Amino acid sequence: MTVELICVGTELLLGNIVNTNAAFISEKCAMLGLSMYYQSVVGDNAGRLEHLLRTAKERSDVIILSGGLGPTQDDLTKETAAEVMGRKLVEDERAKKEIKDCLAKLGRTITENNWKQSLVPEGSTVLYNSNGTAPGIIMEDGDTRMILLPGPPNELVPMFEEQVYPYLRDLQPEMICSRMVKLCGIGESAAETKILDLLSAQKNPTVAPYAKTGEVHLRITAKAENEKKALAMIEPVEEELRQRFGNHVYTDDPEVTLEMAAAELLKERKLTVTTAESCTGGLLAGRLVNVPGISDYFKEGYITYSNEAKEKLLGVSHETLEAYGAVSSQTAAEMAEGGAKAAGADLCVSVTGIAGPEGGTKEKPVGLVYVGCYCKGKVFTEKRLYSGSRSKIREYSVANALTFLRKIILEETKG
Amino acid sequence: MTVELICVGTELLLGNIVNTNAAFISEKCAMLGLSMYYQSVVGDNAGRLEHLLRTAKERSDVIILSGGLGPTQDDLTKETAAEVMGRKLVEDERAKKEIKDCLAKLGRTITENNWKQSLVPEGSTVLYNSNGTAPGIIMEDGDTRMILLPGPPNELVPMFEEQVYPYLRDLQPEMICSRMVKLCGIGESAAETKILDLLSAQKNPTVAPYAKTGEVHLRITAKAENEKKALAMIEPVEEELRQRFGNHVYTDDPEVTLEMAAAELLKERKLTVTTAESCTGGLLAGRLVNVPGISDYFKEGYITYSNEAKEKLLGVSHETLEAYGAVSSQTAAEMAEGGAKAAGADLCVSVTGIAGPEGGTKEKPVGLVYVGCYCKGKVFTEKRLYSGSRSKIREYSVANALTFLRKIILEETKG
Repeated sequence: MTVELICVGTELLLGNIVNTNAAFISEKCAMLGLSMYYQSVVGDNAGRLEHLLRTAKERSDVIILSGGLGPTQDDLTKETAAEVMGRKLVEDERAKKEIKDCLAKLGRTITENNWKQSLVPEGSTVLYNSNGTAPGIIMEDGDTRMILLPGPPNELVPMFEEQVYPYLRDLQPEMICSRMVKLCGIGESAAETKILDLLSAQKNPTVAPYAKTGEVHLRITAKAENEKKALAMIEPVEEELRQRFGNHVYTDDPEVTLEMAAAELLKERKLTVTTAESCTGGLLAGRLVNVPGISDYFKEGYITYSNEAKEKLLGVSHETLEAYGAVSSQTAAEMAEGGAKAAGADLCVSVTGIAGPEGGTKEKPVGLVYVGCYCKGKVFTEKRLYSGSRSKIREYSVANALTFLRKIILEETKG
Repeated sequence: MTVELICVGTELLLGNIVNTNAAFISEKCAMLGLSMYYQSVVGDNAGRLEHLLRTAKERSDVIILSGGLGPTQDDLTKETAAEVMGRKLVEDERAKKEIKDCLAKLGRTITENNWKQSLVPEGSTVLYNSNGTAPGIIMEDGDTRMILLPGPPNELVPMFEEQVYPYLRDLQPEMICSRMVKLCGIGESAAETKILDLLSAQKNPTVAPYAKTGEVHLRITAKAENEKKALAMIEPVEEELRQRFGNHVYTDDPEVTLEMAAAELLKERKLTVTTAESCTGGLLAGRLVNVPGISDYFKEGYITYSNEAKEKLLGVSHETLEAYGAVSSQTAAEMAEGGAKAAGADLCVSVTGIAGPEGGTKEKPVGLVYVGCYCKGKVFTEKRLYSGSRSKIREYSVANALTFLRKIILEETKG
C-alpha cells in the first residue's frame, strides 16, 4: 500500500520553518510498512494544490495532507480536498461546539471566520482536535483515502498518534520491520565495498547505507505477514553484517548513539573517563553529556585551548610543547595522561589539532588532528587529517575521538 | 523566475532525517526573489525521479536537486538528471584528482565506486566540493537550469553559498538586497508584537522574522534596479528596527553568529573569559571555540559535571551545594566566581541546570537552568525554565549563556 505526503504552507516554501511534520509522518508510515514514494510541499494556492491532489490520487492509495486548515481566507486545504473528492462541506455540530469551547478557554472572542473550521466534507470521518480549533478529516473514496491534518506540530502529532496511526495500521495486510546496524571507524565507500554482493542481490530484506558524520548506518528492512516472520528474515542479514564488520558495529538500536555506546562500555566495565580538549573546545565532552546518567562515569572535563592551560591543568611539559608543538602525538599523549591523573579517572581522551581556517603550515596543515587515549597506565595516540570547514573538522574530530575511546576500551580492558 | 526544489533520498521518505536542506535552500531562494511553488522529496528511484524531473522541467525555470550524488549504487541523481537533460556522463579530471586527494587526506583506501563521483554530464559546469567527494553540477538547456547538490548539509551549505547563490543572483533582472538584523534575548512572539505595524504594512522592502534557537532573525529585503537603490531602501527600515530593539540587536552581518558577536566585544574591550559548565557539559565552550582566533580571549574552560568537580576545580563551597543544591543561583554564582579565579580571566560564564529526562522534582523541574556571570568583582545570575528534550534544553541554555555574557559585558564594562 502506498502513501503520499503533501504539506501545505507558504512558510515552508519560504524556508521560515523546517518541515519536522514530514519527518514525523514519514517515520510513522515506514513503521507501518506503508511505501512512501513522494512528499510534496505547496503554498496556500488552490490551483496548484488541486493539481497535485489529482496527481496524487492517481498514483497513491493514501494521501496525507498537513496544514491549511486554519480559519483564514488563505487556508484552503479542506475546500480543495473536498472539491477533488467531490464532497460538499457541511457543518459538524461537535466540531462547532469544540471550537466555541476552545476559544472560550483561551479567552478569545469568536469571529465569523472561526465557523469555517466547523465545516467538514460530507460523509467524512472527523478527527476532533484536543489541542486546537482545526479538526482533522479522513475521506474514503473506493481505495483512495485522503487524510487532512492541522499544520502545528503540537496539534498534528497527538492527532496522528491517537487517531491516524491506528486507522492506518488496520489497513495494512503486511508488516514491515527494520533494524539499523550502526558502524563507526569505517567510511561509507569502504563499508559498501564490503557488502556489494548483498546490495546487488537484495530484494526482501533490503540493506541501505546512510553516511553520518564519522559513522555509517546500515538499515535492514523486511516485509512479511507478521512481525515475527519479518524479524526472522532480518536476523541472518544482521548476523552477516556483524560477521563482516566486527567491532565496527556499535549498536543495532536506532535510539543508541555513538556516545551512548561508549558510555555503555564504561558502565559495563566500571570505568570512569575524562576529556582533555584543545581544538574541539568542549564538543567532545558535550557529546558525552548527551547521555543521560553519564555523571556516574564522567565527572569533569578540561578545555585547554592555550599552551599555558595544557601545562597548568594537564601537566603537559613545557619541553614537549617547545620541541613538538601543541599539535603533535607527544602533546596528545601528555594531555591524555595528565587529564586522567588530574581527574583521577581510568581513562582520558585528548584532542589537539588545527581546525583552521588560519594556523596551518606545510608540515602541519589545517585539518591535522591528533587524538590520544590514556587507559590504565598506557597511552595511545592516532593521527588524522580532515578536510573542510572549521566546524566540520571539529565534528569529525569528536566522532573520531569517541570511536577511538570505544576501540581502546574494547582492546585494553576486560568485559 | 520560478525555482523548484527536489530532494532525493530514501532516508527522507523513511523519516530518518529532517529535511533541513529544504529550509536552507528555500530561504536563500526567497532572499533572491525567486518564486518557489513546489518542493518534492523522492527516494533513490530512477523512474520516479525521472518523471518528477520531466514535470519540473515543464513548470519551473530553475530546478535544484539535493542528494543522491554519493559513490554508492543507490545514488542515481546525476545519472537520471543527465538522462533527462540528454547529456552523456564524462570523466572530469579535476574532480577525479580532488576525490583522490580528499580520500588520501582522510587516509581512506580508494575503492572502485569512488570514481563514479568523478563523472559529470558533458557541457555542464562542475561545482567542486571542498568538503566532500561529490562535486555539484549546473546544467543549462535553453531557459531551463538544473542544479545538482550533494545531500550532506556540511557539503551542500558551503557549495550553495559560495557557488550557487552568486550564479542564481546573476540570473535575476532586478537587484535584490537583503540584510539580516539578528536579535538575542527576546522571544519570537515578543519580537513580532513590537513590529506588527511594519509586518502588516510592508510591500518593498519587506521584513520577515525567522525564529532560531534562542534568537530571532529579521530579514529586510528590498528589490530595486541596482544595489545602491536597494540598500538605500533598506537603511531606514534597519534604523527603525535598531530603534525598537536596542541592545537586543547583536549584528546585521549574516556571517556573524552570537558567539562571534560576544567574542568581538571581548576583543574590543580587551577582556578574557572562561566557562564553568555543568548540564551543558562543554557545549558553551564549544560554541566560543567556533570563533577563529578566540584563543586570545578564551584560554581554558571547565566542565564540572559532578559536585566534587565543582568543589575541586571551581572552589564551590560544600555548604552551598548542601544548602541550595547544584542547580541554584548560589551555585551558579560560585561557579562563575571560582572559574574566573581559577583561570585568571576577567569574566566567567557558568551554567547549571536539569537537562532531564530524569532528575526533575516538583521544586526543581526538568528544564530549570541557572546561568551565572562573573565580571570584575561582581557576580550576576539569571534563572530560566525551558521545555523540551534534553538536547533542546541544553542548546537553549548555551544560547542564553552567550546572550547573558554579552549583556553583562555591555552593561558592566566600558567600550
